[in-house]
Amino acid sequence: MSVQLLAQLDGLLGQAGMLTASTDCAPYVQGARYGQGVAVAVLRPATPEQAEAALSLLHAHGAPFVLQGANTGLVAAATPDASGRQFVFSLDRLKDSITIDADERTATVGAGVRLSELNEAAAAMGLCFPIDLSADPTIGGMIASNTGGARLIKYGDVRANLCAVDAWLPERGGMLRFGSALRKNNTGVDFKQLLCGTGGAFGVILRATVRLHPLPAQRATALVVPASSAAVMPLLAALERELPEFIASVEGMSQEAMQAVFRNVPSVRNPFPAGQVPPYALLVELSTSLPARALALDTVLQDALGALMEQELLSDALFGDQDMLWALRHGISDALRHEGRVIAFDIALPRKHWAPFRAWGQQWLAASWPGVRICDFGHVADGGLHYNLVAPKTGPQALDDEAIAALRTTLLDTVVRDYDGSFSAEHGIGPYNRAYYQRYTPAPVRRLAGELQSAMMPALQWRNVHFD
Amino acid sequence: MSVQLLAQLDGLLGQAGMLTASTDCAPYVQGARYGQGVAVAVLRPATPEQAEAALSLLHAHGAPFVLQGANTGLVAAATPDASGRQFVFSLDRLKDSITIDADERTATVGAGVRLSELNEAAAAMGLCFPIDLSADPTIGGMIASNTGGARLIKYGDVRANLCAVDAWLPERGGMLRFGSALRKNNTGVDFKQLLCGTGGAFGVILRATVRLHPLPAQRATALVVPASSAAVMPLLAALERELPEFIASVEGMSQEAMQAVFRNVPSVRNPFPAGQVPPYALLVELSTSLPARALALDTVLQDALGALMEQELLSDALFGDQDMLWALRHGISDALRHEGRVIAFDIALPRKHWAPFRAWGQQWLAASWPGVRICDFGHVADGGLHYNLVAPKTGPQALDDEAIAALRTTLLDTVVRDYDGSFSAEHGIGPYNRAYYQRYTPAPVRRLAGELQSAMMPALQWRNVHFD
Repeated sequence: MSVQLLAQLDGLLGQAGMLTASTDCAPYVQGARYGQGVAVAVLRPATPEQAEAALSLLHAHGAPFVLQGANTGLVAAATPDASGRQFVFSLDRLKDSITIDADERTATVGAGVRLSELNEAAAAMGLCFPIDLSADPTIGGMIASNTGGARLIKYGDVRANLCAVDAWLPERGGMLRFGSALRKNNTGVDFKQLLCGTGGAFGVILRATVRLHPLPAQRATALVVPASSAAVMPLLAALERELPEFIASVEGMSQEAMQAVFRNVPSVRNPFPAGQVPPYALLVELSTSLPARALALDTVLQDALGALMEQELLSDALFGDQDMLWALRHGISDALRHEGRVIAFDIALPRKHWAPFRAWGQQWLAASWPGVRICDFGHVADGGLHYNLVAPKTGPQALDDEAIAALRTTLLDTVVRDYDGSFSAEHGIGPYNRAYYQRYTPAPVRRLAGELQSAMMPALQWRNVHFD
Repeated sequence: MSVQLLAQLDGLLGQAGMLTASTDCAPYVQGARYGQGVAVAVLRPATPEQAEAALSLLHAHGAPFVLQGANTGLVAAATPDASGRQFVFSLDRLKDSITIDADERTATVGAGVRLSELNEAAAAMGLCFPIDLSADPTIGGMIASNTGGARLIKYGDVRANLCAVDAWLPERGGMLRFGSALRKNNTGVDFKQLLCGTGGAFGVILRATVRLHPLPAQRATALVVPASSAAVMPLLAALERELPEFIASVEGMSQEAMQAVFRNVPSVRNPFPAGQVPPYALLVELSTSLPARALALDTVLQDALGALMEQELLSDALFGDQDMLWALRHGISDALRHEGRVIAFDIALPRKHWAPFRAWGQQWLAASWPGVRICDFGHVADGGLHYNLVAPKTGPQALDDEAIAALRTTLLDTVVRDYDGSFSAEHGIGPYNRAYYQRYTPAPVRRLAGELQSAMMPALQWRNVHFD
């Protein structure tokens, strides 16, 4: 590593902008779920100008770096490798401004602005950025991973709400702006699409403009017990047919997943009659900007669920405390860690294959992997399924890394090849799942992706996320 | 032109699949608005396999061709040039199947299926492809031009509803599938985005999967007279804030545009009291899938407009025959042709610049181009403005081509540079407006676009639409 480069970066970024002590670097080199590496230094520019100057230095020296937002990603895309030769380029201080244009319903923000910070500023103007998830990522990170979340069916993913990005592209003159706040603007290649969902591999996003939505005036939420696993998709279809403008979320939770929360998160109480947790439950949320005097959303939901009960698609519906229901849903991921070794999957399935896949999984795991419990949950409305398994940490049924890798591959092969599903629904591609990207992506597509990536971001600079 | 190639194409496609007589070719070489050229032959494959074989032949011989759907595009992207060396590759017979997956709410169709044909098939299942416009393009053409239309604010453009494309890419092994019907699938580069809105320059789309929506159960429509030009955007903002789930369309029509319809389209009657046409009017449409027993949409619209009248944002609202109101709106484009020489613009503006731009246009045209009438109309809700002008065809104020080119450049310079607008809101890029693409697109972005295009579709083959 060039002493000259380090000195130049130090001069540019100052003490707060360049971390080298291992205790200071520790939070930046450990992935939120996977990955643990070593960084030459963590670079934290405070302004877009500083960022641009630092990127130019790194580029001039051919120094590899990984981009990082709030370090909440789940595929290790933001984690340095073990070589000790990579920099972490953190955008967490790029939050100089949040400019909200209420007429256009847009926000223009530095890449380091957190989702919660954007929503706080937007709420003051009756607006929101409605991509909802339990973590609090930066907007730059959300674009890089095209975050989906729990309300995709109403609002779409980040891609659907992305207006423009200011991105730094080496050998392309530095900063370029792609896109605009205009709703119609068909004037060539929509480059910002290449920067969305590709983990920073196609350009370094320093600023972005996103579309905001009116804050809902009403929400109505119910915990619904479907008549069976096979009834879940017909139930969703019926809700969507009757109430498409209002459905914000249909989240699924298996019995094992809910029980893990009741066992491990004391603040969440069991809402089911006599504490009897059903095999599966759905958190159904409607929302609208209509005031209650125009439409009582609770009544709309109750009527719709009543009709579905008559059609024998559901066996019960509980109208409880909304915050408590969401605490149950969002508590699952953490609660499972107390139950054993979690083998997490972020898959998506076509609607018609959702119930058959779940049935297959139950049979296959019982037969081939005794001791592994299925604690699946996730986004029924958009097909995203956190098919998380829990294995014992000790004892004869504990699994080593090799066994888990074998389980993982067989399961993902089945998802992708037999059920037309996705091996990465919303977490994107990183070192953690690059092998699966290579396994399931046709070779001509990978070659093409590699060539496009090279044109946008010469591969030398970027070792963590690549699509060739 | 190689005799061998023509013989091979003839053998492959047969009489119905290859037109060479000039009378047969005539409808394919004349653009819907701009452009008139000559074709070696019009190739009309009947199946994806035939299309692929024909494309491979063209590629092997290095023969240039232009892609064409229903030939309804408005920027000459589908029109051959005057050289007589290009083929027209028409996809209008690629309509072998329309496969609707009601569970997933998708339709998979050949590129040559017309919008009306798709909607007829979808309606039988209570669904629709809601990109609404007055022409009847093919789905392939809609993807290539990323059609927006009149209901974008509710449903988005084609891009927002595009799930997957099967595209032929030379030197990439031929047919590749990009995308899937899955709502969440973050597994790499979203290549289909490069094929959307780029006029076929990034690949030949032979089949596509699009998202369908539930057919509305109710529509409510009103013809609204805003209090002033300055009141239009606050009125839109208020409607969007109160009724975001229901707004399907807010279309604007200037006095001159409406009068042209009343003069030239006898089937459309003047709905205004005493026939007094106001300076501007808005066609406001709400829609919902809720049944009337849950919500009376007419009442919702009347209440909302009543409140806005109290705020003095509008001076009148007429609740008439929906079909008649849409006939008024859709009749403008044709009606203007009877009024003189039409100078058409497909621009888009930020909301805050809409009224100031209209005021500027009135002043500028009156001062610099006497005799030119402003007959603007279009998509107020999404900022797309058909800023169409009418000049006398004869007499001292008639304009020649050179004068029109000068007018066009000054106006578009103002739109793009002074008002942050778009020179092509929804019609895309083709030979007609390529000079403006070059004028307003930064050189590094054009270079990058050219490189990406070359990787996907070697430039040799494709002379009509290029982004370098």
